[in-house]
Amino acid sequence: MMFATEDEFVRWLRGFTRRRSGRVRVGIGDDAALVVGPADQELILTADMTLEGTHFRDELHPARAVGHRALARSLSDIAAMGGTPRYALVSLALTRGTARAWVKDFYAGVRALARRFEVALVGGDTAVVAGRTMIDVLVTGEVPPRQALLRSGARPGDQVFVSGRLGLSALGLRLLTSRSRGRTGVTTEAIRRHLYPEPQCALGRWLAARHLASALIDLSDGLSTDLNRLCQASHVGSCIWSESIPRPRLADKELSLRLALHGGEDYQLLFAVSPSALPRIRTRFGHLPLARIGEIQKRRGVYLTGRDGRPKLLEPGGWDYFRR
Amino acid sequence: MMFATEDEFVRWLRGFTRRRSGRVRVGIGDDAALVVGPADQELILTADMTLEGTHFRDELHPARAVGHRALARSLSDIAAMGGTPRYALVSLALTRGTARAWVKDFYAGVRALARRFEVALVGGDTAVVAGRTMIDVLVTGEVPPRQALLRSGARPGDQVFVSGRLGLSALGLRLLTSRSRGRTGVTTEAIRRHLYPEPQCALGRWLAARHLASALIDLSDGLSTDLNRLCQASHVGSCIWSESIPRPRLADKELSLRLALHGGEDYQLLFAVSPSALPRIRTRFGHLPLARIGEIQKRRGVYLTGRDGRPKLLEPGGWDYFRR
Repeated sequence: MMFATEDEFVRWLRGFTRRRSGRVRVGIGDDAALVVGPADQELILTADMTLEGTHFRDELHPARAVGHRALARSLSDIAAMGGTPRYALVSLALTRGTARAWVKDFYAGVRALARRFEVALVGGDTAVVAGRTMIDVLVTGEVPPRQALLRSGARPGDQVFVSGRLGLSALGLRLLTSRSRGRTGVTTEAIRRHLYPEPQCALGRWLAARHLASALIDLSDGLSTDLNRLCQASHVGSCIWSESIPRPRLADKELSLRLALHGGEDYQLLFAVSPSALPRIRTRFGHLPLARIGEIQKRRGVYLTGRDGRPKLLEPGGWDYFRR
Repeated sequence: MMFATEDEFVRWLRGFTRRRSGRVRVGIGDDAALVVGPADQELILTADMTLEGTHFRDELHPARAVGHRALARSLSDIAAMGGTPRYALVSLALTRGTARAWVKDFYAGVRALARRFEVALVGGDTAVVAGRTMIDVLVTGEVPPRQALLRSGARPGDQVFVSGRLGLSALGLRLLTSRSRGRTGVTTEAIRRHLYPEPQCALGRWLAARHLASALIDLSDGLSTDLNRLCQASHVGSCIWSESIPRPRLADKELSLRLALHGGEDYQLLFAVSPSALPRIRTRFGHLPLARIGEIQKRRGVYLTGRDGRPKLLEPGGWDYFRR
């Protein structure tokens, strides 16, 4: 490897936590990390793997973006509970051929995002493997008691909302893969959203603190998949209107809708709002648009109503882009 | 894979957390786990990867032992801080060829150990990969403020102790690899210790709660490596006496010492005790023997004194057994 020994690597890594706040008593370098616990808060725990060949490709994704995306996945899970992320552990299985520059850029991506969300990188593990690079990120977060928003609280009559514009990340990947050259405003934004997605922690916290949502999930695997999950967890169904779904502005309308329905990795939030909370929901949260796209109903299954006004069953079709 | 979809796998896994205590509000199945935080305690976080081909071999290690060992590594890190483990997340990257029975046995091993240590399995991630099986286990623990024992507190004049008998795990692996048939008492014990090592959480907690140790580390990579780490973190050196090191009872005395010095994965504890705390250290903790093997000195480096009475520098020689 590009570091002579594990101990050398750990010494290099340890530099990241030296400058941390007083919340971290012991960072990288001892047997485990020791941090200030969440005082009178509930503890949120999440882990997400990021695999070369599945979640990223060496020729498409710069190391910095790989680091950003690996952490973003877990931060988005904390957002989806309405919590505040606090600490991160990064386990990294590298291949023998990985360059030292790749490792530095990877951690630069992790660090930049962590710093912006005030998350302390406090540990992890490292190994060298024969196969492909593999990353596992654990993030802990906290949320005041009885504020956490689960997938399971949606009730018939609740309205379904999403934040942002869906399908941009999938469009960005498509553009990266096809190496199309003509960059317009929408293509540049799509590529940026794919490489550097933004977890919506502030929105999640706002929904939780004001008890605005009855159920909440993050859009990691695509609207059709994640809405089905929310409905199954809540023992309800839903109907959404295709014309209301915010999507990329493309000449190919059909592609645009398909990306918005099945494209994953947008890390926007999908939530249900009860009729009593509806007046308190705005059309924007900061710069982020919030769109009402449908409603929860008693009848199981997720239905999509198009221009013809006829609801059609929407199966989970989360876009597994490497298998296309 | 042996489960048709990720959702099916998650439903199967979720069965594990249904029966959990009131400490777990949300286990496997939502965006993240939600648990009771450590009230007025510090939070310990640790992650350990377990890789096929490096930490286990399919033909030597039963799936149940792989699960046990993967969790044991992290529990031992919590023990090495003097803490109590609470929650575990298991991320598992499986190969396409893995049998469902393997997955069940793996989790049976995780669960049995988790239950015994009252650790709740609350989440993780899962993926299918082309290469080899890879596991990452994250464990959170807690410790009262200012009780945690670090690697860095050893001072010249402190005495060096170890728990248990060192080198048994490495001996067990050796026996498994050589497929030697004659099983005596010591070989059976060595194989058991290798496949099902016991994290020493109770001992770690006792040392921490009574402020008996000035520095503490767990023996995961071998005495020579881990004692060097403890000394470096404490900015001291040490001298240990080869005759005092508890080791396997073998006809081959030289092998026995080498296993005890450099054999990893014993997960016993190595700690320093100041002269003032010395009278309160017993020769046993429950059934576990505690042996004084040397002392901390100002002069840097770890020295081993043999029968000839001459100290020789002991380099970190952690036994990377798959590379022999």
